[in-house]
This record gives sequence, C-alpha cells and structure tokens, in this order.
Amino acid sequence: MSEINKVVLAYSGGLDTSVILKWLQDNYQCEVVTFTADIGQGEEVEPARKKAVSLGIKPENIYIDDLREEFVRDFVFPMFRANAIYEGEYLLGTSIARPLIAKRQIEIANRVGADAVSHGCTGKGNDQVRFELGYYALKPDVKVIAPWREWDLLSREKLLNYAEANGIDISNKRNGGSPYSMDANLLHISYEGTVLEDPAREPEESMWLWTTSPENAPNEAEYVELEYAGGDIVAINGHAMSPAAVLTELNRLGNKHGIGRLDLVENRYVGMKSRGCYETPGGTIMLKAHRAIESITLDREVAHLKDELMPKYANLIYTGYWWAPERKMMQQMIDASQASVNGWVRLKLYKGGVYVVGRDSADSLFDARIATFDEDGGAYNHADAAGFIRLNALRMRIAAHHRQLKK
Amino acid sequence: MSEINKVVLAYSGGLDTSVILKWLQDNYQCEVVTFTADIGQGEEVEPARKKAVSLGIKPENIYIDDLREEFVRDFVFPMFRANAIYEGEYLLGTSIARPLIAKRQIEIANRVGADAVSHGCTGKGNDQVRFELGYYALKPDVKVIAPWREWDLLSREKLLNYAEANGIDISNKRNGGSPYSMDANLLHISYEGTVLEDPAREPEESMWLWTTSPENAPNEAEYVELEYAGGDIVAINGHAMSPAAVLTELNRLGNKHGIGRLDLVENRYVGMKSRGCYETPGGTIMLKAHRAIESITLDREVAHLKDELMPKYANLIYTGYWWAPERKMMQQMIDASQASVNGWVRLKLYKGGVYVVGRDSADSLFDARIATFDEDGGAYNHADAAGFIRLNALRMRIAAHHRQLKK
Amino acid sequence: MSEINKVVLAYSGGLDTSVILKWLQDNYQCEVVTFTADIGQGEEVEPARKKAVSLGIKPENIYIDDLREEFVRDFVFPMFRANAIYEGEYLLGTSIARPLIAKRQIEIANRVGADAVSHGCTGKGNDQVRFELGYYALKPDVKVIAPWREWDLLSREKLLNYAEANGIDISNKRNGGSPYSMDANLLHISYEGTVLEDPAREPEESMWLWTTSPENAPNEAEYVELEYAGGDIVAINGHAMSPAAVLTELNRLGNKHGIGRLDLVENRYVGMKSRGCYETPGGTIMLKAHRAIESITLDREVAHLKDELMPKYANLIYTGYWWAPERKMMQQMIDASQASVNGWVRLKLYKGGVYVVGRDSADSLFDARIATFDEDGGAYNHADAAGFIRLNALRMRIAAHHRQLKK
Amino acid sequence: MSEINKVVLAYSGGLDTSVILKWLQDNYQCEVVTFTADIGQGEEVEPARKKAVSLGIKPENIYIDDLREEFVRDFVFPMFRANAIYEGEYLLGTSIARPLIAKRQIEIANRVGADAVSHGCTGKGNDQVRFELGYYALKPDVKVIAPWREWDLLSREKLLNYAEANGIDISNKRNGGSPYSMDANLLHISYEGTVLEDPAREPEESMWLWTTSPENAPNEAEYVELEYAGGDIVAINGHAMSPAAVLTELNRLGNKHGIGRLDLVENRYVGMKSRGCYETPGGTIMLKAHRAIESITLDREVAHLKDELMPKYANLIYTGYWWAPERKMMQQMIDASQASVNGWVRLKLYKGGVYVVGRDSADSLFDARIATFDEDGGAYNHADAAGFIRLNALRMRIAAHHRQLKK
Repeated sequence: MSEINKVVLAYSGGLDTSVILKWLQDNYQCEVVTFTADIGQGEEVEPARKKAVSLGIKPENIYIDDLREEFVRDFVFPMFRANAIYEGEYLLGTSIARPLIAKRQIEIANRVGADAVSHGCTGKGNDQVRFELGYYALKPDVKVIAPWREWDLLSREKLLNYAEANGIDISNKRNGGSPYSMDANLLHISYEGTVLEDPAREPEESMWLWTTSPENAPNEAEYVELEYAGGDIVAINGHAMSPAAVLTELNRLGNKHGIGRLDLVENRYVGMKSRGCYETPGGTIMLKAHRAIESITLDREVAHLKDELMPKYANLIYTGYWWAPERKMMQQMIDASQASVNGWVRLKLYKGGVYVVGRDSADSLFDARIATFDEDGGAYNHADAAGFIRLNALRMRIAAHHRQLKK
Repeated sequence: MSEINKVVLAYSGGLDTSVILKWLQDNYQCEVVTFTADIGQGEEVEPARKKAVSLGIKPENIYIDDLREEFVRDFVFPMFRANAIYEGEYLLGTSIARPLIAKRQIEIANRVGADAVSHGCTGKGNDQVRFELGYYALKPDVKVIAPWREWDLLSREKLLNYAEANGIDISNKRNGGSPYSMDANLLHISYEGTVLEDPAREPEESMWLWTTSPENAPNEAEYVELEYAGGDIVAINGHAMSPAAVLTELNRLGNKHGIGRLDLVENRYVGMKSRGCYETPGGTIMLKAHRAIESITLDREVAHLKDELMPKYANLIYTGYWWAPERKMMQQMIDASQASVNGWVRLKLYKGGVYVVGRDSADSLFDARIATFDEDGGAYNHADAAGFIRLNALRMRIAAHHRQLKK
Repeated sequence: MSEINKVVLAYSGGLDTSVILKWLQDNYQCEVVTFTADIGQGEEVEPARKKAVSLGIKPENIYIDDLREEFVRDFVFPMFRANAIYEGEYLLGTSIARPLIAKRQIEIANRVGADAVSHGCTGKGNDQVRFELGYYALKPDVKVIAPWREWDLLSREKLLNYAEANGIDISNKRNGGSPYSMDANLLHISYEGTVLEDPAREPEESMWLWTTSPENAPNEAEYVELEYAGGDIVAINGHAMSPAAVLTELNRLGNKHGIGRLDLVENRYVGMKSRGCYETPGGTIMLKAHRAIESITLDREVAHLKDELMPKYANLIYTGYWWAPERKMMQQMIDASQASVNGWVRLKLYKGGVYVVGRDSADSLFDARIATFDEDGGAYNHADAAGFIRLNALRMRIAAHHRQLKK
Repeated sequence: MSEINKVVLAYSGGLDTSVILKWLQDNYQCEVVTFTADIGQGEEVEPARKKAVSLGIKPENIYIDDLREEFVRDFVFPMFRANAIYEGEYLLGTSIARPLIAKRQIEIANRVGADAVSHGCTGKGNDQVRFELGYYALKPDVKVIAPWREWDLLSREKLLNYAEANGIDISNKRNGGSPYSMDANLLHISYEGTVLEDPAREPEESMWLWTTSPENAPNEAEYVELEYAGGDIVAINGHAMSPAAVLTELNRLGNKHGIGRLDLVENRYVGMKSRGCYETPGGTIMLKAHRAIESITLDREVAHLKDELMPKYANLIYTGYWWAPERKMMQQMIDASQASVNGWVRLKLYKGGVYVVGRDSADSLFDARIATFDEDGGAYNHADAAGFIRLNALRMRIAAHHRQLKK
C-alpha cells in the first residue's frame, strides 16, 4: 500500500461513500477531502456537508458544486452533436457524467495539494475506468484509490457491519433500500443488478422512477418546438433557455409522456455483458430532434461521415476516453460540422413516442425547386441521370463482361 | 435513339406504366414483354394481365410472378442481419425491392431474348439508379430505356392526354387519385410529393394507409415472442413460419399498434434532399428485436465492427449497389457473424412503441456468474481492473507528463 | 448548345488547348479569357501570352500566374499532413493540382464577368471531374465547356488538320512529340497512354524524364535532415525555406538519387482501370519523413484514427472533392492533430531508396525511461499487464467457456 | 501463487527460457513440458531437446515441431491477403507468429493434461499479450505463468547468477551475446533495446543480420516473376512451390538485394512508444507484388473497402487478437475477395528497391478497349461524363447557391 497524504473522494453522502470515507481514514491515515456535485441527480447535495462533518471532515475540506450547467453545456450537448448511441440503443447517460466529475476532482486535488483521488465504483463496472482514465489523463502522477478493488467488505452484510461499527447511520438500510444499483444525473437514471441479472425477465413497473408509463401518459399528444443554433437547442416553444434549463424542460416533457425507457444488454469495457435499464426522457427527444434538424442543414457526405464515425465516438465515451486526444480530435470535426445546424424542429410527443412533424431552417439545403415532382424550370436535367448511372455501373459492366467471356 | 428489338418492361398495370408500354411500342417499334411482380404491395397482380392483353401484348409475353417469399428470404432478411438504417432513420423499404425486380427482369430478358429493359421511374429519383445498376451488373450490354428521361410527357396533363389518345383507361384519374407518389411492398409503403414538399408541414392523418394511428391503436399492450435462427426470425409466438409469413404477421401486429411511421428528409443519391413519409410496421419491430437477440449472442467486437460498417452497407443498398461485389463481400462477413444469433426475444407493442422486455438464447454470452453484483466465487478478479486501466491510461499519462515538463 | 458570353479557358499554350481556344471562338462566338498557371510543371509560362495574342486574345484577357507557393502551401502540404496515398501507392500528384486551377479560373471568371469556364481534359479521365466539381462547388451556376466531350476532333489527325486550318503552329507535331500523355507540376510528372496501355509491359527507361534511374544514381548515399513545424517541413539541412522551395529542393535530391518512380494500375473515378507511371521524387521523401516525425509526436490513437480515415481522404482528393464540405471537415481534424508534429527527421537517400535513420522532437512522446529493457525505477508496473490482458481476454474466455459447455 | 500441476513452456533452448524452466520447477513444484517450434528462425531446434533433458525434463515431455509450412500457409499468407501494415510501415513479422505458437502450446496442454502454460516475454512488450490472448481464447480456464512479471530476476546480473547456481550453461554470456533483443521467424528478424532506445541515432550496419546492405547488394538488377492463385503466391519464376518454400526463396532474393530493412518507432499495445528495427525481405516483396496483382483483378470498391478496413485488421494482429471472432469475421470477407486474385507479377529487385514492371491475369479487369486514349468504337460514351459530374456536383451546387442567396 503506497503512502498517501491527502485524498479527494467523490462523495455522494450515501452509505457506500461514507464507509469509503471512514475506510480511507483508517487504512491510509490520510486527510480526506470530499467532493459532492449536483449534476442533476435529483437529490439534495447540502446534506452531504453535514454528513461529512459528522465523519470528521474539516469544513474547508468539503467541496460541494452545482455543475449542472457545465454538465449539459460542455458534455451532454457536444455529445448529442454527434448523435452518439452505444450499440444502437444506449444514450450514454452514465458515461458522459464521469469525465466531468473526474475533472473537478483533479482540480480540487491540485488546489488542496492532494496526491490521491478515490471513488466508490466497483471493480466490475465501466465507471471505475471512466473515472480513472480521466484522473490519469489530467494528473498523470496521481494515486488512485479504488476501495472496492482493495478492501474485503465485499458483501452487503460486511459493509453494513463496518458502517455500524464506525458510527455511520444505516437506518432503513438493513431491510430496505432499492434492490437496484442506480445512477442518475440530469440526462438519465439507470438501474442494474438483482432481478435484472436475468435478461429474460421483464422489469417491474415500479422500478421506473422518472417516467410515467406509456399507458398512464396523457391521452392527448403534445407538440413542442425546439430551436437550434450551432447544433444545440437554445429555445423551447419560443423561450430561450440555458443548456441545463433545456434539458430539465425536455425531461419534464419526456417524463410526462412516458418517453425514453430502455431495457438492454450491453457490452462492458471490462469484458462482460450486463443488463441495464435506463430512462433518458429529454435525451431521447434530443436525439430524434437533432437528426431532424441535421437532415435539412447538413451536406449529405458530411452527415454520412458523421454516421460512419459515430460508433467509434460513442465507444470512446462509453469506455471513458473523453479526455483522450482522439476524442478531442473527433469533436473538433463534429463541432465544425454544426455551424449550419440552425433552425427549428417540431415534435409530437405521445405515449412513449417522439414523432418529427416539421422542420425548417434559414440554412436549409432542401431545395423545393429541385426536389419537386412537378416541372422545375430546368433546375435539374433529367438526362444527366443516364450518364451518372452508366459511369457508376461501368466497373460492374466490365466485370460482368469478363465473366461472360470466360464462360 | 438506338435500335431495339424486344424490351422487358417492369409493368404494374397502372396508368403510368401502361402509357410507357404504348410509348415503347410507338417509339421503338419493338416487341414489349411485360413483367409484373407481387412483392407484397397489396394490390392484385392478375388484372395486369388483362390490361397488357388489351394493349396488344401477346399472352406469352406477359410474366406475372409471386416473389414474396424470395423477396423476404433473399433480400429483406439478409439486410436486417446488418441492422441497416440509412441516415439514422430510414429502413430502406423501397431500396431493397429494386434489385429483386431488376434481377427478374434480366432473367426474363435472357429467356425471351430481349435486348432491352425499361422501367417507369423518373429522372430525379433513386429508383432509376437502383434498377439500372442492377440491369447493368447482371447483363452488361443490355439497353436501358427510361421513358421519363426521354419523352416529353412531363406534365400530368400531357400524360393523361396521351393515355386517352391511345385508349388507356383514365377514369378516376383526371380529378382523383392519390396526391402522393407512393411505393409499396411487403416491407413498407412510402409517400412523396405535393404537400410533403414542404418539410415544415405535418402530413395529414389521412395520408397514412397502413397503420392505425397511435392514438387509435388498442389501449392494451400486446406481447409477442420472436424466435431466431441464424439471425432470421423463424417463428412467432411459437408458430414456425416462412419468411414472407413472418413479415406479413409482423405487419399485421405493427399496423394494429400504430408502429413504424416515419417522416423524414433524406439525401438522394442523385444529389438533392427529399422529404418522404414511410410506414414500415413489421420492419420496425424486426430491427428492434434483432438488436436485442444480437445483444446476448454476439461478441462485443463483432457487434461493434458490424455497427461501424453498417452505414456503408446501408448506403450501398440505398444507392442501388445490391449486386455490386463490395455489397456481396460485406454480406459474407455479416452472414458469418449470424451463426450464433439464435434464441428468442419478447416484445411489448403499445401505441406506436416497440419495447424489448426479455431475451434468451442457448448461445447467450451473458454470464450471470460474472455480471453479478454479488460475490462471484472468483470468476472475475477485481484487481485485474487496476492493471487494465493503468495500461490503457499509459499513453495519456506519458503525454500529460510531457506537457507538464514543457511548462 | 447554350448561349455563352465569355469563357475562361485553362490554357497551357500547347497544341490542344490552342485548338480548344480557336474552337471556342468558332463554336460559341464568345470572348475567350486565357488562364495559364505556373504550378511547377517545368515549362515557361510566358510564351503562352504570345501564343494567345496570336490567336486573337485581347491582352487584358490573358492571365498568367505563378501559383507555386500557393500550390505547395495550401494544397500539397495539407494533403501530406494526412499521409494520403490512393490505393496503397499513388501520391495524388495530378489530383492535388486540379482544385487550385479550378479555384483560380473561377476567381478570374468572377473578376471578368465570365459565365463559362473550359478545360482540355478528355471525357474518359479523372481530371474533367476534378476540374468541374471545383467549378460547380465554387460557382454553382457556371457553364462548363468540355470540348473533348463535345466536338468531333477525336483523332489526332482531325485535331492536327483543324489546327493547321486555323493557323495554329503544328511544327514538330505530325511525326513527333511524346508518345505519352503527360501531366506535370511541382509535385510530380505522370505518363499514360500508348504502350503503357499494356500493363504487362515494362516502360522504357527513356520515358522517365525527371529522375535519374536508380542504376545511374550516385554510388554514395546522401543524408538529409528535415525540420518540421506543425506537420510541415520548414527547413532542410538547417536552412529555412518556403513551401515551394522545400519541395523544389526535395525534388532535386530525389531526382538525383532515383527516388519516386512508380508504375501502377489504378481505378479511375469514371469506372475503368488505367495504367499510369509517375515520378514523385520530393513527395516520396516527404511521405516517409512525415510518418517518421508523427511516429514520435502523435498519440497512438490519434495516429490510428488518421490511418483509418486516410483512404477516404485520399479518395476524396483523387475523385476531385477538394472543395467539398466533407474534405474540409476531415482537414480540420487532420490539421488539429498536427500541432505537436514538430522536430526533425534524418534520412538516407540511396539509389531509389529513402531510409529513416533518426528522428527527435521537443514534443516527443517516446519515453526512454518507460520503453527501456533495463529497470525503469518503477515508472511502469509489470504486474499491470496481467490484469490488462485478462480483462481484454474476458469476452473470449466467456465465449470459449460457453462453447465447451455446449459440446 | 496458485496451484499448478503441469505447465507447457514455450522453450527456445536459450538462456532465458532455460532459467524459466528451472524457475518453474522450483517455484511451482510442477511438471514442465517444453515446446520448441521451428518457425524459420534460422536456428536448429534439436539442441533444445538435449538441453531440456539436461534440465530434468522427461523425454515424453519434450515437444519439437517444424511449423514452417503451417506458419506461412495459415498465418502469413492470410495476413498478406489483407495487405496488412501496422502504422504505415511495420509488416507484423513478430505479431503473426505468436498466435501459432499459442495454439500449438494449448494443443499440447490439452494432450498432456497440463493446467498451465508459460512464456518468456517481458511485462512491457506486446508479445505477452499476443501469447496470452491466444491461450485464453483457446483454453479459457488455463493458468498463465509469465515469469518476467512475477520473479525478481529483473537484472541481467541476477539472471546469470540464478542460471549459474542452477547449472545452466552461461558460457559466452557474461560479456558477450548480442546487445539487441531479437526475434526471428521465416517472415522477419527484429531488433530492439540498448542503443536503439535513442530514436535519434542510426543503428550500426553490423546490427542487420539477414540482408546485405543496399550498398553491397549486386550492381545488376534481378527480375523475378511471381504467380498468384487465390491471392497467394504459388510459383516463382515458373517453379511451383509450397508456401514456406515461396517465402524462403523470396527471403533469399530480398537478402541478396538489400530489401526490407526498416527502422521505426511504433506504438505498443501496452501504451508506450518503442523503437524497433526490422528486416522483412520476402514480406516486403510480397506486399508490393500482392497490391500489383490486386490492382488488375479486384473491383475498385472491393479494393477500397479492403483498404479502409486494413488498419483495423493490422491492429488486431499487432495487438494479439488473431483468435478473436472479429479477426475471423474480417478474414472471411478478405478471403472472399481473393477468388479472382490470380495471375502473375514481374518485379525488378535492385539495391533495396522492389519495382513492379508488369502484371497480367486471365481475371484482369483492365480493359484496354475502354482505357485507351484512342477511339474505342463506342465502348465508352464520353457524354456520360457530363451527367456523372453534374449529379455528383449537385449537392455542392445547391449549397453554394444557398450561400450566395444568404449574402
């Protein structure tokens, strides 16, 4: 075990990270600095302060930040510019929050002169990778403490016993708490574990915490109009909004209309398949809308190039390489493509569905004059198509001709 | 105008191709062979025989084929093995039917000794390309007659006048008929033209011919279980079915539950953007289900490789390169990946939505023993993750270290 | 034939474009503006002025520009940042010059108020595409006149007769001139046609005009040191040089040492295969050196991403899409990667070969401390590799385990 | 340390693996089975038997195989079908041998009932990964012993002392032996370490063991003709040969003419950059020739697809994923493309250079009738190019037009 002087812990205020806090003090005899972020997980962050104090953390070592605007502006929005989806389905809700927390932890570590950082992720998941790749990329010589990979508190029982023995409140934990392992932020909430570990079995309705079920969603559809500038949503139904306000409002709409539930089996970076359920109400709306505004404002080949690179980009985010140079390099290309992605998209929301029903833009490349079935006044010469086809077919004709000759 | 002896015309029996039939006889003084295929467009094909006869076609020159099984087995199913989507949305319903018709036309041309083929596509669309690339790839020296690129009947009025003058029935056409340009087959029905040429405007409910609107769909969800073998659906709810029967049944379910409507602006191969509306009820269900069965049966990197190549594959089909060697080469790789894609997927269908609620397979690579949050008896060594992360981070640590030294 | 008022012709001063000049005057009764560029083809450009005057062009309608610096700085160097090679071999020497000429022609057309542009490319080659895609991208409503696709002077004999009849000097042309169709600029010279049309046959030594044969090259190797800044060569053997001077000097060295001959069969954009021979002395040196400087200054994944995109980028240039948005978008990503590509590379040149023998950089990511076989003082933990390998193998182990269970 | 019963060691007979052999016996008290392969490294393998016996290995536990034919036929040739190059330069000589050795070790482990395998690779290199990914993919529960990651014999001195103390012959080792870490097989020989760890410094001429220097190579060029069937070389200068004989003969030719030296800095899978020098005489010839035969026999888009996938394929081999499903899936596609890759290529070899001077094939898609500059009797219609270009330009024209309108 290496020598540690001061460690910055990503601290939620919950049971697990409280146990980690104590365990760090005990095992490393080091000063612990706690960092708690509001990234829109929907829980108060201030209670974490009292809890940290009660566990012996000095007030000046307690950091609590509201990162919601930064989260959406600098992480969620750039990712949606790429139409990123992992394995055809997953909107990367957990993945995209980790690099921000890692970055802030390192900033604090630099400020307080800490030589280590720590998190509460298990040794089987993706999140440990996402946090630690961020740590190492931003502070190459930092020491990383991942208690779940080091300690022996590997069963729930042992953890609770340790907590009790160390004066950590475990009321309502012995026989309660959620059966799921959950993660939440302004983009999504996720569920894993227990009964979900059988992919053949449908999750219970009660599991879903954010969205109304499609069945209980309003019987009347609702229309919403999103305004885009530079690939990002800047107004909803005519009201200009900050990035976090945009996502908050889209979540409200999505939750109301039962939008964004997902049940899937995904491939983790550490090598196994894992079943997860996700609610991404606002994100589901944004993906659909962003493709719609791009459909009229992006050049075809630019759009296709983005599509071809998207799986790689999504994979980089899923596996934790937000701070890697190749992600930044791809982002530069993606961002460059978005200059013309301006205009509006109108959507219909109804019982789990998001339907594009209109889109327009001053930068639209849709040219009714040319697209029309009616006469176009010579804007398009039909005869051109014959040459276009014949030359595109030439290599196949030559090959077919040779095959015939060989027979 | 080149010398033509005999031409095989893709003949629907409708007004446009009847006019073409007549025009071919008049302009090329050649024998016309008609070919009418049932690919599930939902209209009777036999009436085309009477019509052809009435336009002077010899009975032995009339070919009418039911290609529904071949269409689904050899074209639709292979394409769905690739999870093909064009521009993030379009399920390629029109595109995938063209290569089959082209192939059959060429087979007939070879049998009857025709030196030319003809179709009724306009000079602005993708379909002319898809047909003709197929023709040229399969019969390199064939002559292609595309009347819409040659004649002067470019307005509706001129066309109707020509028809009337040539004894072609135009009752119900002068002031009637659909305002949309439509295409249908067992996979989908599409709408283009007229009011759709304004992408800002929502299509009227009356346009959609196949699906119930989500609003009018049943208030109760329906569950359906699909069984896969080698990447294809072989049974629904326990009943073994042929490929065409599978798609027919999924269309029935999708239509009933309002599934598969799509309104988009796409980029045509000939260079302009175009607005289209599509109903792909069964296909929408199949795409979702296929991803689900792959999620437990495919290796991660195989799945990712498929995802990275998918846009290119979809583009090949969209642009008409089904018979090109690169499409066949990709298909071989895709098909090879499907050997293990066996098992079942359970879906919930509700008011426009398709939700995966369960999946299992004897070939499942989901390993509950390793994926579990509980203790796994040593199947997975948590400590391995530390080394995994540290080596994956190494290049970024070295770079960050150098940046620090340079400051 | 459409109405033309004024046309800007890419005019070399040679026989073919002189005939075109005359033919344009005759056929279109339009004013002709000539444009002659020095892009390093190695021929004087001023004689073109006298020739143009003699063919009736007004002095103010004659444009002659030295574009060598712009060519290398804005076209050749950006392309080499991408390590672009077409079909594994071709360094794109002809392709990269076309977009510059097209751009300059359009600039002149805009200045003189011309409504058309014209070039001397045949209807079978890539160059017509490269020119015209540039024209259309930069001036969408320009009229393009491609005489070789329009006129009937398709044999050498007819062309010479037309020239003679119109007072164009054809001395030394009847039974002389090169048997090859050639193109040259500061980056390369190419040969096509006649005996080369048999790919089985070796070209004669006398064909190669620029390079000494490897056999006749000096018996002593020569060392040269190239200095890079931002991915471009800025100095040779310690002497700072402009882009065009760099390429001129590398050509001198390459020609002397027999470097850069290439004999290949390539796939043209218009669909056929074509045999070409190329001399790219300086470019061959640059490609090798650029990879070497990148090898120590680029992150691994950035380099791999560049490699994966390179074929697409090279294809865009080969097919004439320099001015297309997708090329520009890729360029932004490529250029962004080059900020750290600084340092020097030492090469050995010997009888056709270019050998990298040393490279270093203040931005080097080569870390001798970690790369060493000797003890590294703990910079690298060998044990990390075990976990790295085990997690990378996990998916394959799970799959193999399942295969064993199924047996 | 886990319980081991029997271990199969990849045994070269050299000092390092002899020490490992002894160390395995000592530390694991287990039975050791040695496996020595002739993969063309150029050293006798039989002496390894005597050495193994002298170290106490039972004769029935000694496996010595000549794998040269299998190596070239099933590993080298398939890889060359892909034109695989890592990072633009490296021909993967070391990488491609590892999966074969791993496979054979596992076969032996299964036959003798061993529960473990072991190799002599260090903890910093790629080879440990390549071996172990192979082991795990083929025998998922095998135990892997990597002594260099476990023991404390990390300096040369300690190793020699351990050897001496255990009766292993170290004559000529104390102050002798090569200063380089080397690897050799029928495809190549490599050098790493010591003075090479400064990438700025040119290696000494004496380092290169296989090839004549270009300077000392014959002053006369030599021509060689290679015959291909299905993408593989089957005859040289008219003599049919087995795969290993082909590579042996090409090595002879390459060595004689100074072909295939390479000095580079590469990115290792474990995260650091490393300098290596390579001699790949026959492989360098094969790569050039394979591209040439493909240039006339492959469809353009098939060739381009192969080029786009090549970096990924090469990376898979470099990083040790030969036995992974995604490599096999890609191989199926690559192999499928090679059916038409038949014919011959003539090369000129001269002082380090390989020049293609001719190629022909009964499957050639080069069509002189169409490629010619002379009249082609109507095989190609020049006018087609105008439409081809105009439609390819259409999206750019529309965009440019909109930009003009917005000004």
